[in-house]
Amino acid sequence: MSSRTEIASLGEFGLIDHLTRNNETRNASTVVSVGDDAAVLDHFGKRVVVTTDLLIEGVHFDLVYTPLTHLGYKSVIVNLSDVYAMNAIPTQVTVSIGISNRFSVEALEEFYEGVYAACEKYNVDLVGGDTTTSNKGFIISVTAIGEVAEDRFVKRDGAKKGDLVCVSGDLGAAYLGLLLMEREKKIFLESPEVQPDLEGQDYILRRLLKPEARKDIIEFFEKNDILPTSMMDISDGLSSEILHICKQSNAGSILYEDKLPVADQSREFAFKLELDPTACALSGGEDYELLFTLDQKDYDKIVLNEQISVIGYITEPGEGVNIITRSGKKHAITAQGWNAFK
Amino acid sequence: MSSRTEIASLGEFGLIDHLTRNNETRNASTVVSVGDDAAVLDHFGKRVVVTTDLLIEGVHFDLVYTPLTHLGYKSVIVNLSDVYAMNAIPTQVTVSIGISNRFSVEALEEFYEGVYAACEKYNVDLVGGDTTTSNKGFIISVTAIGEVAEDRFVKRDGAKKGDLVCVSGDLGAAYLGLLLMEREKKIFLESPEVQPDLEGQDYILRRLLKPEARKDIIEFFEKNDILPTSMMDISDGLSSEILHICKQSNAGSILYEDKLPVADQSREFAFKLELDPTACALSGGEDYELLFTLDQKDYDKIVLNEQISVIGYITEPGEGVNIITRSGKKHAITAQGWNAFK
Repeated sequence: MSSRTEIASLGEFGLIDHLTRNNETRNASTVVSVGDDAAVLDHFGKRVVVTTDLLIEGVHFDLVYTPLTHLGYKSVIVNLSDVYAMNAIPTQVTVSIGISNRFSVEALEEFYEGVYAACEKYNVDLVGGDTTTSNKGFIISVTAIGEVAEDRFVKRDGAKKGDLVCVSGDLGAAYLGLLLMEREKKIFLESPEVQPDLEGQDYILRRLLKPEARKDIIEFFEKNDILPTSMMDISDGLSSEILHICKQSNAGSILYEDKLPVADQSREFAFKLELDPTACALSGGEDYELLFTLDQKDYDKIVLNEQISVIGYITEPGEGVNIITRSGKKHAITAQGWNAFK
Repeated sequence: MSSRTEIASLGEFGLIDHLTRNNETRNASTVVSVGDDAAVLDHFGKRVVVTTDLLIEGVHFDLVYTPLTHLGYKSVIVNLSDVYAMNAIPTQVTVSIGISNRFSVEALEEFYEGVYAACEKYNVDLVGGDTTTSNKGFIISVTAIGEVAEDRFVKRDGAKKGDLVCVSGDLGAAYLGLLLMEREKKIFLESPEVQPDLEGQDYILRRLLKPEARKDIIEFFEKNDILPTSMMDISDGLSSEILHICKQSNAGSILYEDKLPVADQSREFAFKLELDPTACALSGGEDYELLFTLDQKDYDKIVLNEQISVIGYITEPGEGVNIITRSGKKHAITAQGWNAFK
C-alpha cells in the first residue's frame, strides 16, 4: 500500500459510508440494512438464530502474521460456523470494530475486503455494526443471524446412548499453523535476514489464516434428510467440545484414536516439532469443523461422504468420556483446549 | 467488596455458567438462550430488528467514576434505545465482554447485576454473548434484537416538508454530568482529601450514569395510533442527528432555540461552567432521547404529552438545516457532536 488516508479525515460516518459503499443485499429477509439505528429483518415463519464473538488483537490474533483481509474473512467465518452448528443457514452479520489511529483507511479497506469476500461466498448480508476508536489494538465484534425451520435446529443436548460421534474434515491443522507462524515470528525477530521457511505448509497455514465454515455439511444433511441428535462447532478443540456435548446431553462417550481425522501435512509438521498429532487433534483449537452425533440408523447416509468421519459412539453417562488409543489403552478425556483465562 | 475471586479459577465456561445462573426467559420468542452455539428466536410473522454497539474503556467510559452496575445497565440501554428508535420493541440482547485479569469475578457480578436490571425493567432476554480476556481495559459489545409489525417500523429517511420536528424528554444533561464528573476526577487526582461536590446534581449525574431508553414514547405512539415519518435516537447530539435525518430524507429543517427542552438543573450547571445551555443541548451526546418527525395532522395527539417537545419543522432540502436563536437570528447547524475519531 503506498497511500495512507487518516481515519480522522473521514470522521465516523464518513468512514462507515466509505467502507459500506459497495455493500450489496443478497437475502430477501434483509429489509433495512446499514445506515439506520438498527437493521430490519423478516424471517417470516422461521426460527431466527443469533450468535456473537469478540476478537481482540494480541489475544485472538497477531497482526504480525495475519493479513487484514484474512482477518476480516475469518472474523465472519467463526460466527457463521456457530450458525451452521445449529443446523441453520446464516443470512445476516453485523461487524463492529474498535481501532487505534495507527490504522489507516486503506488498512480498514483491506479488512472489509475480507468481510465482504466471506459475505459473498456464504451468501450473507452485512446489515450493521459500530465503528469506534480504541486506545490500543484492534477489536472486532461480529454478530451473525441465521434461519432454520422450527423443527430442524440442533442443540448440544440431544446425544443419546448408541449414537455415532462424527466430525467433519480434519483436526489440529490450524493449531499447527499457529505453531508454525509463532516459530517464524520468533526467528524473524531474532534474525530479520532469515527468509521464512513455509514450503509445503500451505494447508496448515490456510487452516489458520483463512478457515472455512462447513456450509457443505449442513447442505448435505438437508439433501439427505439427516438430522443430527446434537451438534457444535470445534473452536476450542475436540476434547473440550465432546465434553460439552456429553455434559449437556447427560451422556458418556468413547472415541478411537485411530479414527481421528488428521491431514498428512498436519501429521508431518507435528512430527517435525516432536508433537503427538493426536494431541494436536484433541486439543488444538480453531478447527471450525462440526462435531455431531447421529442415530445409528443414519450410518448408511453418511458412510460415503469422505468429509465425515465416525470417531466413536455415545455411552451411558456413568462411563465418562474416554479415548481408546492405538495400543488399545483407555484414557479419560480432559479439556486441554484453549482457555482464554489462563 | 471484601472477597476477590480470580476469573482464572472458574475458567471461561465456569464464568459464563456462574454469571448466567439466574438468567430468566421473559419472551415467548426466546426458544434457546445462553449455552449453545447460538440462540434460537421465533419472531413468527413480525419483522426482526438488530442493532449493536461496541463500548471501550477509556473511550466510552471511565471506570474511575462509573460504577460497574451502572455500566452494565447503560450498555444494554444504549442498544435498546436504537431498537425503540425503529419504533420496535426489544426482545433479546447478547452481551460480550473482554476483560483483563485486574477484574475479579465479583466485579463482573456487579456488571451483570446492571445488565440483568436493565433486562428486567425493559422485559428483554439475555440470550448469549462471548467472554474473553483483553490485554488491557474493559471492552463491551452488546447486540439487541427487537420486533415490529411489518408496516410499523420507522426509518430515518421519511421526513417530508411541513412535518413537525419533535424530541422526547430534555437535552444536554448527560453531557453536563460528564463535565461534572471530569471536574471532580481532576480535583480528586490533584487533592484527594477534598470531598466531591455533587449536591443538587443528582439529575445530570443520573442522566450520565444510568440513562433510560424511551420505551414510554413508543408505547404512547402505539396507544395513540401515531406513526412518525422518521425517527432516530439522540446519542451523538441533536445537531448531528437532525443532520442525519435531513440528509437521509433529502430535506431541510428549521429549529427554534427557545423550543429546545433543557432541564433546570442542566441550565444551572451550564451557567456555573459559563457554558451556553443551547450549545450543550445541540452538541452534548448520550441523551438517548428520541428525535422524530410527525405529520402536522398528528399535532393534536401529542400536544398534551409533556414528554414531547415540538422544536421545529421540516423544509425543502435547499433551505439547509438551521436554528433560529432567541434573538431571532438564523444559524446553520453543523455537527459538533461527539466524533470518536477526533
